[in-house]
Amino acid sequence: MSELALIEQIRREFAPARGRHVVLGIGDDCAILRPPAGSDIVVTTDFTLEGRHFLRGIHPAESVGHRALARGLSDLAAMGATPVAAFLSLALPAALVAKPEGRRWVARFFSGLRTLAERVNVPLAGGDTSESPRETAASGGLILADIVLVGATPRGKALRRSGAKLGDVLYVTGQLGGAAAELAGMLERERPVKVGPAKGHPHLFPDPRLGVGRALLERGLAGACIDVSDGLSTDLAHLCRASGVHAEVEQALLPIHPLASELPAEAALHAALHGGEDYELLFSARAGVRVPKSIAGVPVTRIGRVMPKRAGRPLMVLVKPDSRRVPLEPAGWEHFSRMSKS
Amino acid sequence: MSELALIEQIRREFAPARGRHVVLGIGDDCAILRPPAGSDIVVTTDFTLEGRHFLRGIHPAESVGHRALARGLSDLAAMGATPVAAFLSLALPAALVAKPEGRRWVARFFSGLRTLAERVNVPLAGGDTSESPRETAASGGLILADIVLVGATPRGKALRRSGAKLGDVLYVTGQLGGAAAELAGMLERERPVKVGPAKGHPHLFPDPRLGVGRALLERGLAGACIDVSDGLSTDLAHLCRASGVHAEVEQALLPIHPLASELPAEAALHAALHGGEDYELLFSARAGVRVPKSIAGVPVTRIGRVMPKRAGRPLMVLVKPDSRRVPLEPAGWEHFSRMSKS
Repeated sequence: MSELALIEQIRREFAPARGRHVVLGIGDDCAILRPPAGSDIVVTTDFTLEGRHFLRGIHPAESVGHRALARGLSDLAAMGATPVAAFLSLALPAALVAKPEGRRWVARFFSGLRTLAERVNVPLAGGDTSESPRETAASGGLILADIVLVGATPRGKALRRSGAKLGDVLYVTGQLGGAAAELAGMLERERPVKVGPAKGHPHLFPDPRLGVGRALLERGLAGACIDVSDGLSTDLAHLCRASGVHAEVEQALLPIHPLASELPAEAALHAALHGGEDYELLFSARAGVRVPKSIAGVPVTRIGRVMPKRAGRPLMVLVKPDSRRVPLEPAGWEHFSRMSKS
Repeated sequence: MSELALIEQIRREFAPARGRHVVLGIGDDCAILRPPAGSDIVVTTDFTLEGRHFLRGIHPAESVGHRALARGLSDLAAMGATPVAAFLSLALPAALVAKPEGRRWVARFFSGLRTLAERVNVPLAGGDTSESPRETAASGGLILADIVLVGATPRGKALRRSGAKLGDVLYVTGQLGGAAAELAGMLERERPVKVGPAKGHPHLFPDPRLGVGRALLERGLAGACIDVSDGLSTDLAHLCRASGVHAEVEQALLPIHPLASELPAEAALHAALHGGEDYELLFSARAGVRVPKSIAGVPVTRIGRVMPKRAGRPLMVLVKPDSRRVPLEPAGWEHFSRMSKS
C-alpha cells in the first residue's frame, strides 16, 4: 500500500466530510471551516504514540483509534464545546502497510476512530500522512498519530480551569479509577485484548463527556472545568493553580469505578486519585447552585470543596474517612501530561 | 529536564500569546481563538519527523524549527489566509533532554521556530508534549513534531486548487529547484551545516509566501492556487485533477533557482520540475487578467497554461525549448506528500 493508497483509504472511510461547519474537507492545502456566527473556536492537539500511549501487542486497533479521538473530544468537553472537525496526522511503518495483517490493523484503527467520530458527529477534515521514521536500519518504525480537534462555543462562554472561587463545591462525572484498573489487568495478562466498542471498558473505550460539558456551559452551572486525563490529583492541582485556590477532597465521597473496587482498598484509592485517562469532567460550582445528580445521562458526584489559598498549607488536602486531613500530592502520570495542562 | 520543565521553557519562549485573535493560549484544555467576524477558518497539520523530514546530524536545529512552521504557513499562503495561531505537538527523547547539548538543541529548535513566528506574527497557542517512544530498549528515540496552523480568510474567498479553467495562464512565485539543490549539496558534504536564518537558503530557511497569497485573494487574481511543497510536477498534477483540466508547462520559462543552475543542465531541470519543498505558490489566472511581475516583493513568472481535458492525452505536457511536447509525469516525493494533497 503506497502512501497515496493510504490516503485514498482514509478518504473512503471518512468522505465526504458531512459536518455542517466544514466547507471543504480533505483535498486541498487546508480544510475550510465555517463555525456558527458568534462562536469562539477552541483547539486542542493530542499525540497517540506507540509505546507511550498504547502497545501494539496489547491494545486492540479499534481501541487505539477510539482513544486517539476521545482524548481530543474530552478536551472539547472540558471547555463546554461542540465538535466542529477533527484532523489526523498519521505515520505508519512501511513494514506494517506492506503486510495484509498490518493493513487490517490500519483498517481496524480507522474503524474505531470512525465509529466514535460518527457517534459524536465530528467529520475528519484533513491531516497529514507519512511513512514512520526508523531509528536504525534494522528497526521497523512505530505507529505515530497526532489528533487535532476544533470545536465551537458561544462567544466568551467557554469553560476554563481558572474560574473556581472560595467556597465552591467540587464535582466529578461518572466514576474514577476504572481506566487505570482495566489497564493494570491488561498489562498483567500480557495478552491482546479482544473486545468491541462497548460500555464497561473505561480504558479501551472511554466515553468523552461532551453532553455534560455542553450542559454545564448552557445552564451556567460550572465555575471551572477540566477533564480528568492525567489523574484526579494532577488535574485538580491544575484547576487549583489556574484558579489561585486550594481544595479538599473527601475520600468517602469518591465515586470509585467497579473495576477499581475489585482491587485491594489501597490500590483502588490510588487508581481513583492518581490513575489517568478516566476522561471524566471535574468542575466547581457555587455553593448555592443546585447541581443535578445526573447530567446528560451521566451521574455527577460531589467530592469536595474549594478552600482559601494559604501560604505554607498544602495545595490539596484529602479528608480520610476518620476525618484526618492529609496532604494530597499530584501524582498522575507526568508523561501523559499536556502542554495545555502545565 | 522533566516534561513540566520543557513545557515551562516553551511557555517562556512564547508566552504570552499576543495574537490579536487568541483569547486564551497555553494553559487550559483547549486554546480559545476569536477570528475576525465574517471569516472562514482554515486548518492544516504537518509532521516534522526526524529521519524523514530532517536529519539531526545534518540540519541545524534552528532550521528544523523554522521549516516545521514554514510548512504549515505555506499551506495558509496557498489559501490566501492570514495566520491566527500555531499549535505544536512535540515528542523528545529522554536521552536528548538529559544532556546539556541536547537541551541546547531544543533551545535552538525553539529559536528557529520563534524567529519565524514573530516575523509573520503568529502566536503559539498550545499543543502537546511527550517523551519520544523507543523502538527497542537499546535505542534512544526520535524527535517527532506535528505543527498545526489555523488561519482566517474572508468568508467564501479562500483560494482553492479547484478553480483553474481552460485557457488560464499558470504562474509561479520565486524560483524553483533551490531547496532540492541545497539539500543535495548538504547530503553530499555529510557535515552539519552552520548558518543562521538568512536569505539564500531555500531548503534550510524557506520563506512562506503569505504576502503573495493574501494579495492574490484580495485582488482576485488567482483562479486556483497551491503551494509547491512536493515538487512542481506533483503539485501541478494535484491542481489539474482538482480543477478537471490538463496543463502545459514551457521549459524555457521556468525560473530556475541559482543554486539549481549550478548543477548540470539535466539535474537543474529535474530539481525545478520535481524537487520538493520550494514552498513557492503555483496559481492560475484568467488569460485577460494582468498579473504583475512582482507581488508583495516576490517575482512572479508565467510558466504555462491550462488546457482542455482530453481522454488518452497526458495530464501535463512539457514544451521543450525546441518546441517538442513531451508528457510531464508527477515525480515529486510521495512520502513528503500530504493527506490534504491526495
